[in-house]
Order: sequence, then structure tokens, then C-alpha cells
Amino acid sequence: MLATAAPVSCDTVLTADYLLTDSGETLCNAAVAVAGGRILALGSRQTILTGYRAAQCIELGEALIMPGLINAHTHASMTLLRGLADDLPLMTWLQKHIFPVEQRLTRELCRKGALLACAEMTRAGVTAFVDMYLLEDAVFEAAAESGLRMLGGEVLFSFPSPAYKNCEAALDCVRRQAEIWKNHSRVKVAVMPHAVYTTTPKLLEACRDLAATLDLPLHIHLAETPAETEGCCATYGKRPLALCREAGLLSPRTILAHCVDLTDEELDLLAESEAVPVHCPRSNMKLASGISPVPAMLKRGIPVALGTDGAASNNALNMFLEMGTAALLHKIAGLSPTCLPASSVLGMATQNGAFAMQNRELGRLKIGGPADIIALDLTAPGLTPLHSPISNLVYAATGHEVTLTMVEGEILYHNGEFTRLDIAALREDIRSAVRELTSG
Amino acid sequence: MLATAAPVSCDTVLTADYLLTDSGETLCNAAVAVAGGRILALGSRQTILTGYRAAQCIELGEALIMPGLINAHTHASMTLLRGLADDLPLMTWLQKHIFPVEQRLTRELCRKGALLACAEMTRAGVTAFVDMYLLEDAVFEAAAESGLRMLGGEVLFSFPSPAYKNCEAALDCVRRQAEIWKNHSRVKVAVMPHAVYTTTPKLLEACRDLAATLDLPLHIHLAETPAETEGCCATYGKRPLALCREAGLLSPRTILAHCVDLTDEELDLLAESEAVPVHCPRSNMKLASGISPVPAMLKRGIPVALGTDGAASNNALNMFLEMGTAALLHKIAGLSPTCLPASSVLGMATQNGAFAMQNRELGRLKIGGPADIIALDLTAPGLTPLHSPISNLVYAATGHEVTLTMVEGEILYHNGEFTRLDIAALREDIRSAVRELTSG
Repeated sequence: MLATAAPVSCDTVLTADYLLTDSGETLCNAAVAVAGGRILALGSRQTILTGYRAAQCIELGEALIMPGLINAHTHASMTLLRGLADDLPLMTWLQKHIFPVEQRLTRELCRKGALLACAEMTRAGVTAFVDMYLLEDAVFEAAAESGLRMLGGEVLFSFPSPAYKNCEAALDCVRRQAEIWKNHSRVKVAVMPHAVYTTTPKLLEACRDLAATLDLPLHIHLAETPAETEGCCATYGKRPLALCREAGLLSPRTILAHCVDLTDEELDLLAESEAVPVHCPRSNMKLASGISPVPAMLKRGIPVALGTDGAASNNALNMFLEMGTAALLHKIAGLSPTCLPASSVLGMATQNGAFAMQNRELGRLKIGGPADIIALDLTAPGLTPLHSPISNLVYAATGHEVTLTMVEGEILYHNGEFTRLDIAALREDIRSAVRELTSG
Repeated sequence: MLATAAPVSCDTVLTADYLLTDSGETLCNAAVAVAGGRILALGSRQTILTGYRAAQCIELGEALIMPGLINAHTHASMTLLRGLADDLPLMTWLQKHIFPVEQRLTRELCRKGALLACAEMTRAGVTAFVDMYLLEDAVFEAAAESGLRMLGGEVLFSFPSPAYKNCEAALDCVRRQAEIWKNHSRVKVAVMPHAVYTTTPKLLEACRDLAATLDLPLHIHLAETPAETEGCCATYGKRPLALCREAGLLSPRTILAHCVDLTDEELDLLAESEAVPVHCPRSNMKLASGISPVPAMLKRGIPVALGTDGAASNNALNMFLEMGTAALLHKIAGLSPTCLPASSVLGMATQNGAFAMQNRELGRLKIGGPADIIALDLTAPGLTPLHSPISNLVYAATGHEVTLTMVEGEILYHNGEFTRLDIAALREDIRSAVRELTSG
């Protein structure tokens, strides 16, 4: 009977020499069948090719099929500022270079910058990202245009910002964004107060209430530097984590960017809260912010995700570079070559990223789960030989080996071609955007 | 008269939108004329195109012409071991995984591994490398075949190694290698004792004499870990640098890999000696060896070069990743965002690398100098916009943006094609080499 069973129809079948399973094993001669944006079947090339009839079948050859990477903290529009100023004292960098340029940003400039970020991330195997910035409407639009998954939010300050004049208007802005995107399958809205030093406890509490009322995630920069802690203690007589906790901000719906300056007791509280920290090693290193206690968090079962931060402080939105840097940084910080092994780092960029996206179906290849899939060409000299796919992708890959990026079953990039974005036109747009930003 | 002057004949003209000059400035609409393996002229596109008639003229478009990168410390053949074992305690890693496989190495296996390394380096813009390994004859051959510049040497131990049975035979091996390659324009030989803990003071002195007699450079691993220092103190009652110094090893002809565990007094001695340290940040991080005091060395005027180390402890031979990691590591180590700016890191990978190669003409684009040139495509989303070429190439590039690699005026790689290496055949060779190495 098996021999005569009719093949099941599906949208796409991807076949490749290797596939990274949910449990971290490598399946050889593998394939995945996709239908309706979800993974219909996973298995051997032969089983899938026999059992499924696909509208399109893509043979990826000597490649690794794996879950898309999740960039759990970024400011997409800041690609416009990549390389504008580096290697400067923090306050000089911010006040003389970043802030003045940011004041010239318009919604259209932000949209262009965010589209460039989406192109960069798509090209290097990112399928979902968490984004916080000013004029975030532009980023929602760019993400929707690019096809990437996004959890985004207007950055909320207790002072005026281009999208609002005061705190109440800021919250209204979030309500409006949540309403606009409530039925979009890939673009989701969160409440995003900037940090304890740019808001007030009252605004933080209002954010907590808004997130609870609308059932939205909540994202904030937390404990990024010892200076933040010092300022918070001076102003409020307590450390940033305590302030957030007392404002009711710590819950499983909360995503905390950076988490550098935390005590052991704070790590225990963090674990208890089930909030999701996002480690941004390249940004923390470049700005000399400090080293997040990632191994100690993972040991407590905290699902630490991984993010690039914005392109002004990284300067790449490349999760392969971020994975490699994370794995190396914690070995030297912990003075142990066993610290943060490659498989843990990959988990941070995939399954833990799903916690940050507040969608635990993401970050894994699983039957019935979302078809957010990438393929990595393994024929580059730098990925040869293949003793261990996970070692190669964390310690040796650069992201350029990505040959296919698929989100919700839709191919966004394949072999040098973007299916949705016109890169030549985008680069022209960026050129004019940069002229507008830096002239006069 | 100028209008009618006949154009000068040359071998190749490269034109591009940008060129990185010797002083770190960016020339727009630039070109370089190459003849006899050397740079004949540099200047504007128009000047060069008018003044020179080239056998081949390559328009690189929106690209950056820059000096080739110099990988000042590696073990090329170890690409065979890439990803074989990671994330393990040092002794487990060495004794259970690396040493047993190394015992099975043959000259032919080493040649294949070294060719793979040459392909990887050529692809990512390396034009010269310093190499130390067992059965180094194979690496000399591979380098000569690949067209890269190389300064290499048989690794010298005070115990038997596949190429020799005792110290006298080891020195004979170097004499033989020096004789074979003495007239080669790109492949050069050095005397390479492994380290203080695998040699004896007597062997080190013999190395010093051999290097002086044959006028060869000398390369050794030095002060890689605190454990090396501890062992040296226990055995000899002095630290590794003192031991080397007393053996007469410290001179401008000496290249010192790692230089992690050094005191301020030792840095002063190092500066005085004019020896050239090679910083290997990714290897030092992955093996948790420690952090080399690079900013303190540069401050003393020491020309610190940059190297990848071997692929078992990195796991990439990618100088773009190495530059980015160096720039980030020292910012976090020094807790200052101004530490090791991008221009310093680029200098380490180019002009200071020339000190390590013992050929100060390398690492810069200069009229009359060697035509060791690479071009970086700037159209990738991750290198857009171009506020600062040096920032982009240190903080954002991954090496895959390299579209052209030229050594001594000869194009070795251009737009995905290797001119000398058959990559498909090489990958097949590597597959069989790995089977041979890991079976049984």
C-alpha cells in the first residue's frame, strides 16, 4: 500500500546534504517539505521526495538546512549611521556624532535605513528581529516590505521624541501601532520604554499597564553599563533591576537588552521572573560597556538570547559574527575553553531568540512549526572540512555562506537574489539618505 | 607635449571607486598600474588610464583597492583539523584529539591541508603568511603552488618529529629548506623553534646561530599562557622572555607569536630588542590563554602584527574576523572605547605584518613597492553606507567581500575564480584526507 500511496501536495521542498535537527543532531541527505508557511515534513531526501509533490523543489546540494537566526535586539534604522563615528569616548560619540544626526531623522530616512538592515539581515540568515527605535512606524513598514518577522516598538522616553510630545502621547503611539499591526502574521508590536535613565518610574508603570492591557511584550535596555547603575542608585537609591522590578516590569513578557551589570542576587531574581535577557557582545565590547554574565545566566536556566544592537555600535547586523564573538568572549572572560560551547551559542541565536520574539515556535525546525529556514553553503574553503556543522557555523562561518533565507514558507533570498527587495534601488536611496543626513 | 606623450606600457591596471593610500587616506576614482610584479603608478582613474597602456585593465567598480592582508602566524595544514574538537579543557583537547590526529599526518596530507588554507586565505584577502608546522616542506610547496607569499619553517623540537630524529637533524632540515627556496621570490625560510617548553636553551642557541649564519628570520611561540611562564620558572628559574633573551633570540629578525603573559619590564625589553610580536586574539580567546597587552606594546612603538593561528584553535584563517575581534577585545579589556582604533588594527594586519614577514616593502600601496593588492566590493548591504572605509573594513567586513587578490602583480583570485587552484579537486582531496586522518 505504501508504494502506491499518492504523494501529498505541498508548496516547497528543500533538499540538502545536511539538516540540523531540533535536538542538534545532523541529518544527512535530508529534506524539508513546506506548506502554508509551516513545516509539513522533515526527513531523508528520498522519503520526502517520494512522499510529497511540491510546487517548487530546490536542491541545495552540499549545504546545511537550519533554523533561521533571531536577532533579539537591534535598532534597524541605525544602519544609516554605520561607520559614521567610532573609537571615541562614549559621551563624545553620542553627543557630537550620533545624537545630532538622529535629530535629522525623518520617517522616510528611518524607513530606508530599516530596509537596508532587513536586506543585510536577510542576506546573512536572520529571519526574525526585535527592534526599538524612534519613528518605528517606518521600521514596521520596512519589515513588512522585506518579509522578515519583527517584534518592534516605538522607543518611549519621558521627554518628547519625533513621534510624540509627552508620555501620554507616547503610549497612544503604541496603542495605534498595536492596532495597525494586530492581524499581521509576521510583524508584532511591543511596549518599549528606553531605559531607567531616560524614563520615570511612573512611565515604566504605565508601560507595564499598557502591556498587560493589550497583552503585548515589553522591551527595555537594562543594566547596560556600571554608569547606568551608578546613576540609578544616585537618583532612586536602588539599582536598575530593582527599579524595574518594583515598577512591575519583570515578567515572562519582558525582554531585557544587555544585562551587563548584574549581581548574583539579581541573576536569581531574573531567573525567577522568567524575563528574557538579550546579550549583545559586539556592542558591549565596542562601547566598553562590560561583559554580561551569560554563563551564569544560562546555568540558572535563563533563556539568554543574542542580538547585534544597532549598526552604530557593532557595526554589523550579522548574527554569525555575533555567535562567534559570544563564544570567544566568554571563554576569555571565564578563562576557560569550555565556557559557552558552540551549541549553547547556537541555542541563544535560535531557540532562546524565540523566547525574545515571544513566539516559542520559532528557532527550530519542527513538524507543524513555522517554516523560518536558512541554508548555509558548505563548499567555501573556510567551512571545509565538516567535522562538526555546529562548530563550523559558530567558529568559522561569516554569514555570507547563506544561500537561502525563508520566512513563513516564503523565500526572501536565494543565491544572491532578493525576491522582495530591489537592492540597487535601495543602495541609491541610501546614498541620497546619507547625503541628506550628513550635509549642512 | 603632455597631450602627445605616449602612454607607458604595463601589465595590469586596476581601477575602482576608492583606493586606500599609504597614509590611510581614501582616494576616490582611483587606479593603480602594475608592471613586473610592482606598483608602477597610483593615482586618479583618468591619470592612470591616460598615462598607461595595460595588457589587462580591470574595472572593479564600487570597490576599495587596498594592500593585501598579512597573516603573521598560522599553521596552515591544520585546516584539516578545523572543527574536529572544540570547547574542551586544553589538555583533553590536545592529548585526546589534536596530538593523536597529528601523529597520522603525512607530507601529502599536510600539503592538502596547506593548499586548503591557501585557498581560504586567498579568498579572504590574505596575500602573505608566516607558517610553522611539522613536515613544512609540504607547506612550502603548497604556498608556491598557490602563489601566496610565505615565510615558513619546520617546527623545531628537542625531541623527534616526522621530519627529523634529533636536534642536529632538525637544524639540517632547516638548512636544506633554506637552500631549496633561496631564490624563490615569494617563499622564504625561517628558523622556527617551537617554544621554550618544547626545546632546550641549547637548541635555542643553536637556532640563534643558524639564523645568524644563514641570515634567516627566527620565529617562536612566546609567553602564550601563564602556564608556560610557570613551567619555565619551575624548570629554569626564569620567565620565557628572559630565557629567550639569554639564548640571544631577541633581535629584529625575531617574530614572537602570542606574547600574552608579559610584564611591563618585559615589554620594555621587547621594545628595545625590536623583535616583532604577533597577536592572535581569536586563538587566545578560544583557548582562554589570556589577553596580550597590545595597546601597551603599540604605545612603546612595538610593531605588533596580527595572526590567525591554526584552524584548530580559531577556527578561521580570516584576517577580517581577526581585525574585528582585535579591535573589540582590547576595548572591553581596557574598558575604553578608544582602545585600539580601527586604523591601528588595520596597520597591524598590513604594515606591521610586513615587519613579521621581514620585508618592510609589504603591507602598503606604494610606487615601486610589491603589487600585493586586494579589492573589496563595497556594494554588500553590510558595507553600506560608506562613511568610513577603514571602519567598514575592520568592524563590518567579513572577508567575503574580497573580489580580487593579487600577489607580486599576479591575480590569484577574481570574482569567485581562483587562477591557480582547482577548488573542486582540492575539496575532493580534503574529503579523502579527512577520511584517512580520522578512520581507524
